[in-house]
Amino acid sequence: VSAVLPAGGSGERLGGATPKQFCAVQGRPLVSYAVRAMERISWISDIIVVVSPENIETMKTIIEKYGHRRVTVVEGGITRHRSIFNGLKVFAEKEFSSHLLQKPEVVIIHDAVRPFVEEDIVSKVVMAAKEHGAAGAIRPLVSTVIASAADGCLDHSLERARYRASEMPQAFLFDIIYEAYQQCTDYDLDYGTECLHLALKYCKTNAKLVEGTTDLWKVTYKRDLYAAESIIKDNLSQRVCVITKGKESLAQVGFLLPESLKNQIKVEAISVSPSKNDSHLQNIISGQCYNFVCVNDKRCAIQEIQELVDMLEKSNTPLLYPVVLISVHLDISENNSFSIGMEDITTIKKFARETKKKNILVYGLLIQYK
Amino acid sequence: VSAVLPAGGSGERLGGATPKQFCAVQGRPLVSYAVRAMERISWISDIIVVVSPENIETMKTIIEKYGHRRVTVVEGGITRHRSIFNGLKVFAEKEFSSHLLQKPEVVIIHDAVRPFVEEDIVSKVVMAAKEHGAAGAIRPLVSTVIASAADGCLDHSLERARYRASEMPQAFLFDIIYEAYQQCTDYDLDYGTECLHLALKYCKTNAKLVEGTTDLWKVTYKRDLYAAESIIKDNLSQRVCVITKGKESLAQVGFLLPESLKNQIKVEAISVSPSKNDSHLQNIISGQCYNFVCVNDKRCAIQEIQELVDMLEKSNTPLLYPVVLISVHLDISENNSFSIGMEDITTIKKFARETKKKNILVYGLLIQYK
Repeated sequence: VSAVLPAGGSGERLGGATPKQFCAVQGRPLVSYAVRAMERISWISDIIVVVSPENIETMKTIIEKYGHRRVTVVEGGITRHRSIFNGLKVFAEKEFSSHLLQKPEVVIIHDAVRPFVEEDIVSKVVMAAKEHGAAGAIRPLVSTVIASAADGCLDHSLERARYRASEMPQAFLFDIIYEAYQQCTDYDLDYGTECLHLALKYCKTNAKLVEGTTDLWKVTYKRDLYAAESIIKDNLSQRVCVITKGKESLAQVGFLLPESLKNQIKVEAISVSPSKNDSHLQNIISGQCYNFVCVNDKRCAIQEIQELVDMLEKSNTPLLYPVVLISVHLDISENNSFSIGMEDITTIKKFARETKKKNILVYGLLIQYK
Repeated sequence: VSAVLPAGGSGERLGGATPKQFCAVQGRPLVSYAVRAMERISWISDIIVVVSPENIETMKTIIEKYGHRRVTVVEGGITRHRSIFNGLKVFAEKEFSSHLLQKPEVVIIHDAVRPFVEEDIVSKVVMAAKEHGAAGAIRPLVSTVIASAADGCLDHSLERARYRASEMPQAFLFDIIYEAYQQCTDYDLDYGTECLHLALKYCKTNAKLVEGTTDLWKVTYKRDLYAAESIIKDNLSQRVCVITKGKESLAQVGFLLPESLKNQIKVEAISVSPSKNDSHLQNIISGQCYNFVCVNDKRCAIQEIQELVDMLEKSNTPLLYPVVLISVHLDISENNSFSIGMEDITTIKKFARETKKKNILVYGLLIQYK
């Protein structure tokens, strides 16, 4: 399975100079969220991002800056359909690409301006495409749809319950959608917008329609950028990274803490086990995690906290939003004394005063048990 | 012209316990913004808000708290159409209301969850309704609309350019829409949603369709509440109230300052002339204005600023957002000296330190000219 993300739109409905897919939301371009959503799904081999010629360099910079992998940037056409067709050609036409990518069985088509797609719906759409040849996410209509007559008056209104809004992601057997694009007319390529329609018209494939979630919506207007930003902020505050380094007893904490957090306050928890190297942690940080819990059993964990602070600073994460970092010192030794623990806390306090200036809020928590 | 605002929805698509029309946005329920939008239009005589029985008291409290006028609260039915019908009955059926309101020539129907409607589009829709009997705002479709077959597969997709989304406001000659509601079946009342459809079906009236602006959208999902909040904040920061009290020379400043602000930084400016009494200013404050410029020619204007601060405190405005208050002392006397002016500034500074605790930021500006 591979994915094609058309990102060539001009964003004229947004009323700004920057096309909406390149607008920054919480300091990160919208297209980067959509790429990341696809990237997180391990069974997607290649992600083709199709952008207009003037934005190719911008897109390459974004890929480098946010460490996106498995992404190929392709030059788009003047319309949506022509851009998607160009994206598909990378898998089929040797002369089109310097290195031909392996042709996938199923290709996902998803908009760069739909940042909140979850693996669950992508998976459902792909499974349906395998069975039916084509599939697409749908949503109920928000407004009644009407047809107007030539004089600008109401001709008739559609019964809302019988119709649906066609959304993304969509998925197709590669051969079907590629065949449809090869068959279709210039009129289709210039004025059409609906891939499901092409599969039906040129390959007699009736797409399976899959009921999607509310977060599939497309960022179209300026108000949608505001909404996207608020949703991202909400998601960030609900995400915590639990870091455990050290002995086996800590690894258990690293398992139990996320579990209890999940059950009680519905936070997404990520555990970085000691066996993984720091590139995993780096990925989490670049994914804009703002809450960290570090569990230690060493006497003084300042050095590890310092490393994390350095990584956070380098990522520019705390520039946008304060980062919360809780250092838990788990004291399981027999011969501990309360006063020694307090010394650690004093060190943390002093350290915290410094990091606060960098918009990183460090808290120390000392847990002793015998 | 009168208006009916159906506000009886349960807001199930929002996924919260509070119906969306009663959700607070910047500390004020959404329905209050929609009512205010209608209220600001001087040629609308009566505003009928239709709410479900359990929310009648809530709605009455909102009307009192935000000082809404010309509003009548009516008990809604179990569906949208039944609620609108109830709203219309207030103008036509004696037994339905304790005091029969005067039957309007044209009635506007607008959703309580569309807070950003401007007088311009309301006026266009009303004019079109006078001519054609019915009219409604429309918007281009954001997604392709598709019809699904019984097996959950695509039947056909509609050509996007031929169809429009039917939005609000809509307007009707009262006799036409009332006749349509009296004629229509229980099925229509229970399962229909589109007023334009009723006017067409039962009164053979083809509504005139009026292209609307992007801000007509309906708050449907949680993300729409986020978007509404951001738009309201944006609007607030772009709104300034210029207050001039005193001599004629100041009235001129009160005219020139808003004019130059309008041209240069696109702010909405309101001038309160000395002839108006304070109830006008009170209305502006309750409309959540956060920026004030007070122009004075008195030696010490602290007393007037204090009055304004008292009014702001009473309104609870600064609780949500800091209020900026710029006191401009325009010194046009012949025998002024710089040191006397500096004394005034010192007084303002001391005063400002106190008001800052109340989230009101006071700045003093001294302008001397001979």
